[in-house]
Amino acid sequence: MIGRLNHIAIAVPDLDAAAAQYRDTLGADVGAPVAQPDHGVTVVFIDLPNTKIELLHPLGETSPVAAFLARSPAGGIHHICYEVADIEAARDRLVTEGARVLGDGEPRIGAHGKPVLFLHPKDFNGCLVELEEA
Amino acid sequence: MIGRLNHIAIAVPDLDAAAAQYRDTLGADVGAPVAQPDHGVTVVFIDLPNTKIELLHPLGETSPVAAFLARSPAGGIHHICYEVADIEAARDRLVTEGARVLGDGEPRIGAHGKPVLFLHPKDFNGCLVELEEA
Repeated sequence: MIGRLNHIAIAVPDLDAAAAQYRDTLGADVGAPVAQPDHGVTVVFIDLPNTKIELLHPLGETSPVAAFLARSPAGGIHHICYEVADIEAARDRLVTEGARVLGDGEPRIGAHGKPVLFLHPKDFNGCLVELEEA
Repeated sequence: MIGRLNHIAIAVPDLDAAAAQYRDTLGADVGAPVAQPDHGVTVVFIDLPNTKIELLHPLGETSPVAAFLARSPAGGIHHICYEVADIEAARDRLVTEGARVLGDGEPRIGAHGKPVLFLHPKDFNGCLVELEEA
């Protein structure tokens, strides 16, 4: 069911410093910051040859990333995103298997303009898993 | 400098359950458990179309993954691994830029039989980063 790893999202306390480190120290292909107010984050996309890294920094008062950084001030991996061909079919299979979908269980439009769902970390080895319709 | 994302390593408290979940619930291509006593882990490799997931479970008395699971009993992402063309050149560039290499700073042979280094999580947004010579 799951296909490609679409991205790894890393919450960072200092977006400029983290972007500079990936660009200058690690020599990666780092984009400009993009504000995504609907998702409560500012994102820097890093293109690797086979997948993406997304650096996340809180934007606004209710950012889910702010709570993450309050618990882990140095930052850390916030979630991993797998692609699926049909997000509603994936959701139905997961629910049948007993996995919990966050929110109301309906896909919403994610940061890439495609339908996404998030799965409960307690059901997936402590990892917040995003599914994105490819 | 960094190339492909070689893998994401996830520490899991129950290797059989996690492997079954990735195989049966997420429908991924999941291998058999492989004991790696030199690294203090038993590993299950999951092949995605563009990268790998490695499920890690402690093996032996001094496993670094045991300490991780003691802090995070549900499991979690243990490290991410980027490929580099020349690990000694990468190490020298990182040290010049002020990043800390774990251990004695010399590459050792990793779980895939290739030279690897680990970088200090405090220098990389709370993420343990492995570099592997591709």
